Amino acid sequence: MQIATSAAQYSTPMNFHTFILQLALIYIAARVMGEMAVRLGQSVVLGELLAGVIVGGSVLGWIEQTEVLTLLGQVGVLLLLFEVGLESDLKSFLKVGGSATLVAVLGVATPFALGYGAAMLLHLSPLQAIFLGATLTATSVAITARVFQEMGRLDSPEGRIILGAAVLDDILGLVILSVVVALAESGSVSWLKVGATAGAALVFLAAAMVVGFRYTHLFTRIVDNMKTRGRLIIAATTFALLAGYAAESVGVAALVGAFAAGLILERTENQARIHEQLRPVADVFVPIFFVMVGVAVDLSKLNPFNAANWPVLGLAGALAAAAIGGKLVSGWGAGGPSVNRLAIGVGMLPRGEVGLIFAGVGLSHQVIAPGEYSALLLVIVLTTFLAPILLKRIYKTQATKT
Amino acid sequence: MQIATSAAQYSTPMNFHTFILQLALIYIAARVMGEMAVRLGQSVVLGELLAGVIVGGSVLGWIEQTEVLTLLGQVGVLLLLFEVGLESDLKSFLKVGGSATLVAVLGVATPFALGYGAAMLLHLSPLQAIFLGATLTATSVAITARVFQEMGRLDSPEGRIILGAAVLDDILGLVILSVVVALAESGSVSWLKVGATAGAALVFLAAAMVVGFRYTHLFTRIVDNMKTRGRLIIAATTFALLAGYAAESVGVAALVGAFAAGLILERTENQARIHEQLRPVADVFVPIFFVMVGVAVDLSKLNPFNAANWPVLGLAGALAAAAIGGKLVSGWGAGGPSVNRLAIGVGMLPRGEVGLIFAGVGLSHQVIAPGEYSALLLVIVLTTFLAPILLKRIYKTQATKT
Repeated sequence: MQIATSAAQYSTPMNFHTFILQLALIYIAARVMGEMAVRLGQSVVLGELLAGVIVGGSVLGWIEQTEVLTLLGQVGVLLLLFEVGLESDLKSFLKVGGSATLVAVLGVATPFALGYGAAMLLHLSPLQAIFLGATLTATSVAITARVFQEMGRLDSPEGRIILGAAVLDDILGLVILSVVVALAESGSVSWLKVGATAGAALVFLAAAMVVGFRYTHLFTRIVDNMKTRGRLIIAATTFALLAGYAAESVGVAALVGAFAAGLILERTENQARIHEQLRPVADVFVPIFFVMVGVAVDLSKLNPFNAANWPVLGLAGALAAAAIGGKLVSGWGAGGPSVNRLAIGVGMLPRGEVGLIFAGVGLSHQVIAPGEYSALLLVIVLTTFLAPILLKRIYKTQATKT
Repeated sequence: MQIATSAAQYSTPMNFHTFILQLALIYIAARVMGEMAVRLGQSVVLGELLAGVIVGGSVLGWIEQTEVLTLLGQVGVLLLLFEVGLESDLKSFLKVGGSATLVAVLGVATPFALGYGAAMLLHLSPLQAIFLGATLTATSVAITARVFQEMGRLDSPEGRIILGAAVLDDILGLVILSVVVALAESGSVSWLKVGATAGAALVFLAAAMVVGFRYTHLFTRIVDNMKTRGRLIIAATTFALLAGYAAESVGVAALVGAFAAGLILERTENQARIHEQLRPVADVFVPIFFVMVGVAVDLSKLNPFNAANWPVLGLAGALAAAAIGGKLVSGWGAGGPSVNRLAIGVGMLPRGEVGLIFAGVGLSHQVIAPGEYSALLLVIVLTTFLAPILLKRIYKTQATKT
């Protein structure tokens, strides 16, 4: 299994003729598999991930990880979180702030402890164990956000807690990554520097929200003063792109910035119209992201009948148990009597692209060897594919109960 | 002046952080200049082209011609023609078929004859003169289509005649290009082969339209059977992409295929809903095309105070006169008493990306030298920027008259 993130792996520039065919193939595969998934009671996202596996190198080999498709997918996930922000309400978020914080902290601490312990039991070095534990702390919110959006549950207590916890998790992840990189590079950590990095991110996000809410009327005024076609969708998209850019500039994921942009515009009088126009744009970009996640999966390393894969599969099994167990525990951080804690734990499962960044850093700093890297990738893929399946099942059971 | 089309000129792969900033800059520049253009009584397109010149290498150097931005722009022009097709009606097209054919033929013959003559007078070789004349026959429909769409005049007799003539012109261009390439490569032309190429394109287009109209109900049925979000916009976009791909496969421009796809879906009961959902998607992609056309312009070769530029500027002046005069004459091919023939001639002016392809082929086959290539680029830019300005002026005068 191999999930490429580095640009160096891209092949030659794509011509337009190939590009439009690939786009069409991505849409067709995503749609066919998405429709099948829904008919089987599964989430559309699962269908799109599988569509990517099928059209990717593992099976048909029609779609490769090219620069343009990867970038379009990243724009897709940015627009997805922007849309999720537009559908969310900051106030009801702040209400679950305590639960979200506890879920985020537990969701970092438990997988780290379990992953560290499992790695030490398997006789890896302490630094490797710290690194593997750290990678398991990642949360990729895209999958869960999409599944909750699909089920119309973004505004449920579980949806709000997961989104809030994912934002906090991104900042915690920033801290953990800088600690781990410092350990890998110099063997010691400057806690002052780490604190400053995290502090800058937190201050930025808080300031952006305060300034954003204070000046939302400017957005409305600018749009009202424009006369040409597309003014609202372009103004909204540009706002989301700039927020994503600003967030990345302080080390936070672009999708956190876009989510904040959505929360801010949710308060404007244009919210409904922005959302209506954003929908088809998101529909065009978002599937590319999930299909490309599937394309990145290389099934060849998964073959359990090949004895050469056994050590990697063994480590992956132990790490997967830690990864899943650790995040399920985090669900119990959520307060309130009617909250579905299992759904929250499952919603925190996917490691996705966040886990990939960790694993990639470890490999490039030679903290972990290709074998451990493959095991991590297996865990990342497993948790990413498992979450939509389990979430559907949990809510189906709940629906039959009530 | 330099308009890059070859992929070899793209710099290193772009990271997401840079990419979203560049997208945001493109949108902001396009919007600011587009709004200014409208307030000055000009077309939005002119503003977007100038926005590209400003953010491109000529002035600020913020945006480069990267693979991903070029491809997104090409998707934009494909979606623009798809949308134009959705807004058009095949029957009223066929009604102006005679006029469109005459305009297309005149629009090819006159610029060719004038360009050939001018080049011979300037003592260029006969092959070079043929090549320069051939390049002047190109018509890029994107600019004119967008201006007419903006003015709500797509369904006017002028709009229909120009669109019809542009489609025919693309096929005539295919013939001319294959003749010129054959002359450049072997010095002789196999008219049988040329005829077969053009015949294949014509047969394909006719067959696609007949089959398309016969089976539009299948499109509706497929969409009706889908259950998941985004089904209509994805089905429509995929149809346009596949039509564009098929058209390119027989040598016709992708945008001609997308235009035919729009004409076909215009007949379905979903037309209004597709159009409504396509609007924001087109709004997001289309400006990228026009800005990138502007980015491709390098003003440094335009400086008339630099004596080194004089021979190129002289040739460019002669070719520009032939290019503009030739296409203005084509307007007189349009029949009907109330048709604005000047508007049609002006609408046929832009050479855009079609002219670029010709010029690029000439340079790569060493039929023309860099000096003649630069002169051609100057003519292409001039006609492309002139058309929206003149069209606005013509219709403003007409509006004050009536």
